[in-house]
Amino acid sequence: MNRIDVTEKIISTKVAKGIKWEQVAQQVGLSKEWTTAGCLGQMTFDAAQAAIIGDIFDLTEEERKWLQVVPYKGSLPTPVPTDPLIYRWYEIVSVYGSTIKELIHEEFGDGIMSAIDFSMDIQRQEDPKGDRVNVVLSGKFLPYKQY
Amino acid sequence: MNRIDVTEKIISTKVAKGIKWEQVAQQVGLSKEWTTAGCLGQMTFDAAQAAIIGDIFDLTEEERKWLQVVPYKGSLPTPVPTDPLIYRWYEIVSVYGSTIKELIHEEFGDGIMSAIDFSMDIQRQEDPKGDRVNVVLSGKFLPYKQY
Amino acid sequence: MNRIDVTEKIISTKVAKGIKWEQVAQQVGLSKEWTTAGCLGQMTFDAAQAAIIGDIFDLTEEERKWLQVVPYKGSLPTPVPTDPLIYRWYEIVSVYGSTIKELIHEEFGDGIMSAIDFSMDIQRQEDPKGDRVNVVLSGKFLPYKQY
Amino acid sequence: MNRIDVTEKIISTKVAKGIKWEQVAQQVGLSKEWTTAGCLGQMTFDAAQAAIIGDIFDLTEEERKWLQVVPYKGSLPTPVPTDPLIYRWYEIVSVYGSTIKELIHEEFGDGIMSAIDFSMDIQRQEDPKGDRVNVVLSGKFLPYKQY
Amino acid sequence: MNRIDVTEKIISTKVAKGIKWEQVAQQVGLSKEWTTAGCLGQMTFDAAQAAIIGDIFDLTEEERKWLQVVPYKGSLPTPVPTDPLIYRWYEIVSVYGSTIKELIHEEFGDGIMSAIDFSMDIQRQEDPKGDRVNVVLSGKFLPYKQY
Amino acid sequence: MNRIDVTEKIISTKVAKGIKWEQVAQQVGLSKEWTTAGCLGQMTFDAAQAAIIGDIFDLTEEERKWLQVVPYKGSLPTPVPTDPLIYRWYEIVSVYGSTIKELIHEEFGDGIMSAIDFSMDIQRQEDPKGDRVNVVLSGKFLPYKQY
Amino acid sequence: MNRIDVTEKIISTKVAKGIKWEQVAQQVGLSKEWTTAGCLGQMTFDAAQAAIIGDIFDLTEEERKWLQVVPYKGSLPTPVPTDPLIYRWYEIVSVYGSTIKELIHEEFGDGIMSAIDFSMDIQRQEDPKGDRVNVVLSGKFLPYKQY
Amino acid sequence: MNRIDVTEKIISTKVAKGIKWEQVAQQVGLSKEWTTAGCLGQMTFDAAQAAIIGDIFDLTEEERKWLQVVPYKGSLPTPVPTDPLIYRWYEIVSVYGSTIKELIHEEFGDGIMSAIDFSMDIQRQEDPKGDRVNVVLSGKFLPYKQY
Amino acid sequence: MNRIDVTEKIISTKVAKGIKWEQVAQQVGLSKEWTTAGCLGQMTFDAAQAAIIGDIFDLTEEERKWLQVVPYKGSLPTPVPTDPLIYRWYEIVSVYGSTIKELIHEEFGDGIMSAIDFSMDIQRQEDPKGDRVNVVLSGKFLPYKQY
Amino acid sequence: MNRIDVTEKIISTKVAKGIKWEQVAQQVGLSKEWTTAGCLGQMTFDAAQAAIIGDIFDLTEEERKWLQVVPYKGSLPTPVPTDPLIYRWYEIVSVYGSTIKELIHEEFGDGIMSAIDFSMDIQRQEDPKGDRVNVVLSGKFLPYKQY
Repeated sequence: MNRIDVTEKIISTKVAKGIKWEQVAQQVGLSKEWTTAGCLGQMTFDAAQAAIIGDIFDLTEEERKWLQVVPYKGSLPTPVPTDPLIYRWYEIVSVYGSTIKELIHEEFGDGIMSAIDFSMDIQRQEDPKGDRVNVVLSGKFLPYKQY
Repeated sequence: MNRIDVTEKIISTKVAKGIKWEQVAQQVGLSKEWTTAGCLGQMTFDAAQAAIIGDIFDLTEEERKWLQVVPYKGSLPTPVPTDPLIYRWYEIVSVYGSTIKELIHEEFGDGIMSAIDFSMDIQRQEDPKGDRVNVVLSGKFLPYKQY
Repeated sequence: MNRIDVTEKIISTKVAKGIKWEQVAQQVGLSKEWTTAGCLGQMTFDAAQAAIIGDIFDLTEEERKWLQVVPYKGSLPTPVPTDPLIYRWYEIVSVYGSTIKELIHEEFGDGIMSAIDFSMDIQRQEDPKGDRVNVVLSGKFLPYKQY
Repeated sequence: MNRIDVTEKIISTKVAKGIKWEQVAQQVGLSKEWTTAGCLGQMTFDAAQAAIIGDIFDLTEEERKWLQVVPYKGSLPTPVPTDPLIYRWYEIVSVYGSTIKELIHEEFGDGIMSAIDFSMDIQRQEDPKGDRVNVVLSGKFLPYKQY
Repeated sequence: MNRIDVTEKIISTKVAKGIKWEQVAQQVGLSKEWTTAGCLGQMTFDAAQAAIIGDIFDLTEEERKWLQVVPYKGSLPTPVPTDPLIYRWYEIVSVYGSTIKELIHEEFGDGIMSAIDFSMDIQRQEDPKGDRVNVVLSGKFLPYKQY
Repeated sequence: MNRIDVTEKIISTKVAKGIKWEQVAQQVGLSKEWTTAGCLGQMTFDAAQAAIIGDIFDLTEEERKWLQVVPYKGSLPTPVPTDPLIYRWYEIVSVYGSTIKELIHEEFGDGIMSAIDFSMDIQRQEDPKGDRVNVVLSGKFLPYKQY
Repeated sequence: MNRIDVTEKIISTKVAKGIKWEQVAQQVGLSKEWTTAGCLGQMTFDAAQAAIIGDIFDLTEEERKWLQVVPYKGSLPTPVPTDPLIYRWYEIVSVYGSTIKELIHEEFGDGIMSAIDFSMDIQRQEDPKGDRVNVVLSGKFLPYKQY
Repeated sequence: MNRIDVTEKIISTKVAKGIKWEQVAQQVGLSKEWTTAGCLGQMTFDAAQAAIIGDIFDLTEEERKWLQVVPYKGSLPTPVPTDPLIYRWYEIVSVYGSTIKELIHEEFGDGIMSAIDFSMDIQRQEDPKGDRVNVVLSGKFLPYKQY
Repeated sequence: MNRIDVTEKIISTKVAKGIKWEQVAQQVGLSKEWTTAGCLGQMTFDAAQAAIIGDIFDLTEEERKWLQVVPYKGSLPTPVPTDPLIYRWYEIVSVYGSTIKELIHEEFGDGIMSAIDFSMDIQRQEDPKGDRVNVVLSGKFLPYKQY
Repeated sequence: MNRIDVTEKIISTKVAKGIKWEQVAQQVGLSKEWTTAGCLGQMTFDAAQAAIIGDIFDLTEEERKWLQVVPYKGSLPTPVPTDPLIYRWYEIVSVYGSTIKELIHEEFGDGIMSAIDFSMDIQRQEDPKGDRVNVVLSGKFLPYKQY
């Protein structure tokens, strides 16, 4: 058994039972983004969280233990994603990547926006011309230090 | 001459003269994100905008015409970016890609978040534990239609 | 169980029973292109459509649920397809890609032809020198917007 | 000197002079798709056509000869295109590739749709919900023969 | 079940029973090249041929049906083949590719040698300095047409 | 200076002067296939042959010396060729590769068909249904030896 | 069943029984290099050899037949090997490849060192500064021939 | 200026002057393998050796200094080499890689054959059936150590 | 059975039983780095060590034998790792690779830092600004030798 | 002009003048690792540092400005490095990557070792069995945070 098996069971049970990620997040008491990433095998739950997830998805004791093991991260099957929804994000990195780099450096100097001390919030924004997906990304700026 | 030559001249002049993207954007009258992307060869300016950009960066008539030609987009030299700042964005797509997909579909159904009818806003958020980079992405949801 | 399992069962049953995609489309009440793409794991059916598909291909309740889950899209095993029929389409993108880009931009300005708000119609065109495959692609033009 | 040099000169002159592909096609007397592909280094002109193109773009005698040499085809810099407009076409091949294969085989049997005995027509279709790009692809069906 | 399963069964049975491709071809009444390609999952048999193949390799009814379904073609596991015999053919394309292109264009003009309206004949040519493999490839020339 | 410079000069001069490969081969006294491959930088000429080639293409003394240096072989810019004429040959290796392997082994046992002790002959075969390209490949069979 | 299954069984039995390749080679009566390559699925045994191998590794009749079928060669999982011992050989080809090419051509002219009419001998060479691995490679020189 | 420039000048001068690597090696007083590798930009010369090389190839003072700088090693343009002579070596690693690994481990245990404390000797071995290239590789065995 | 099966069983048992690598290392009597690498299928244990490991992880006799077989090394699923923790190490090689090369050559001359005669020590370094991971790598310098 | 031009000039001047990185670092007043990385185009200098570097390497005013611009990082030409010294570091990541991940997570929980808040120290460690390269890497541990 490994974490991928647990992830597949969670997804399979979600479809069979008609569970929503938002409900899972509410029960766990964390954001829907972090909770979903954890259920998809990208984050590590503590014992209490694993117990809640385990009850929702009918996981065995051993499967609940796997939720508490740090996983090998990376959720996509190819370096350039083929799924159109995910590809658009890759396209944003491709088209705007140099722009993002320039503007963060202009404001902060040399360093990066952390993807670890990081949060994400995805919301629907109603719009008469067609609703929009609004995403707020927040990452701590980490400066390169001289030594 | 091609658009890449113009982009290189803009960057080179920017360094030599010490110009800031934010100043350029203010003169052009557009967001700093869109303006920078345009100067980096990813967007198309109209004649009036090209004239402003041309004055800022000492461009010739022919170079100003190239700013009005739709460029071949894609600003990164490799499919997986090597620069740490840009890589973190690629990492977000890799680690959170399946999460983003799940949550947008849960809210909107099958479709994508547009990278064309799209805007981006990058801001500093002050924080006593270390300032953060806040980015708001807004893209129209485009549903797959049956036919 | 996942969507790929359902797709494989559909294909396997199609061969065993001698079903035609056109018949499936007629029963579902949609174009043969969209219906086939859905059966091949690229589109999402609603409950009523899934019930019809499920009856045609003897799917279980759980399999019918999977037809209603948005799939991870991308139907080819390699970035450059090896199958000659599909390769010819890739070749068209390779040889004519820059032409398509030039002509759409000449007519519409900067933007893209949507692959989401999109339809496709494949027809036989009789021709004494050898029948032809005629394909009509129709995609909404989406302009890049300034912000 | 090689064909790529000639293509770059044509594009460069087109921008400097503000020429449109449609005008070029009318002077050459061929479709805008084929003419543009030829000017972009993908097709071979005969002497008379090369003379017309040469006059439009101020080509030398040697450059006009290169237009009559069969080029090494393929107009994109990477196997998976990064430009969003061209990528959408690659995405259509990726998402719909297996569908196209199934439906052409269902109608015609084993074989391919030719990309050589082939034509393409790109048109604007007005639509109150947003104009559409309509593309008609026509390729002779070539059956695999037994021997 | 899919076509790959049928191909593997055919190969496995061939080894177990000591069948030769030439014998199979004689029974089917086609060339050994086409017949072998079909048995290896690259070509489509009709019902009568599938019955003969089915009897030789002890195939079930369902397996015989799969022989009549157009397969996803491409018989090699990697883009650059590792097997030395097959690699030598890839090497011929690499070393002589530009030569083949030049000479076919010199004789025929712009177009291709078809790999669909195509036949291949592999024969032993006795030679005192060591026997040779002689291969005759015959493909219809397909000219690019202007439109 | 290197061999690639010489190859480019040969091709450039060929276009400027309207030389045909067949004429070059006749003057050199070798097949058109070997001669063309040599001129395209894939084979090594001796001094007498280099002198003939040098006269035809106006080469300097140093350039003639380069024709006598064994080149780094491989004439294509990408592992999977994008040019349609050359791709068809790659497709033949992909689709028929396993077939070629099976039939040569069935006839000769384990070993390869040499691409070094090798010749190629490309001819037009007239055909009322459309002329064909006929290619004869002849390579010595080299058996794996036990030791 | 296929050759890979037989190779895996041989390796698995070797570990379980503690067999050494050198012993296998002695019983088969061939070099340890060729014998090991054959057991690892890269060479073809004759019936008598397969019987000996079969007895050593407890192979069934069908498995012994597979040893007599020419395998699809190539023993490494990636184009650039990750295992440090094998990588060092790849590194030798990378660092010394151009040197090997220059020196063989200086001595023999244009052609190759055969990897088919080839043998390899790996021996320990005792050395007070640390024992060395000595490898002798012997391949027939095959000259390119003009035609 | 960089080391690649120096390498290209050495090769270019070698062709122009008709120098042989063996002569260079004799003057430098090292093996022809090491000397050639150094001239091809893979090894580092000391000042005295650089002076000799510099005289042979008419190098400037600055170019002689570059010969004494440790180069970025790797002499091939692609991960899988296209040149047939060099490819055969890559093929040996591919086909015999697992065999080499097994036999070195059987004799020495876990560790590698060094490519640094390493020498290579390439010789012609006369043979009535066709002369052979004999290569002796000698590398120190380096055992993995426990800690 | 192969080594990968044993590695998976070890990891699976570790999670089920809640074992820590540090404990395993203490029982084996080696560093935690070497012991963990061995348990993850990268190093070779001797019989006594395999017995200890076998008892900890409930391994069968055959599985204990596999621990004593030199494994095919390389512990990552892709050439560029997707897991953020491991990627940061890859990034260090990418960003600092040329620096490491320059400084080791400046100090030692041409050669490498061994990854075989090598040890690694990973420790927590307490720091009020946030604890740090301290890693000491120690590798023997191996000079290139002239011959 | 761009940063790569400046880097090349620095390296070229370093060779011509025989400068050592350690001397540069002493004049700049930073570690030799950070200083070298900066000179090789991976780090950003402030104005005072750029002036010192500029004096050492005879840089123009514009070149000194480029030293103060954040560069696009990544110092290697290929994803898998070919240079043996740098490859050994890649090999350490490949062989020990999963071990490093396990041990850091065992000590710190889920998170990464920073490559930004990071320092490196490379030293010679004398050893009678052959001197060693000792490298100390120190990176802040950054925990994944829940939100």
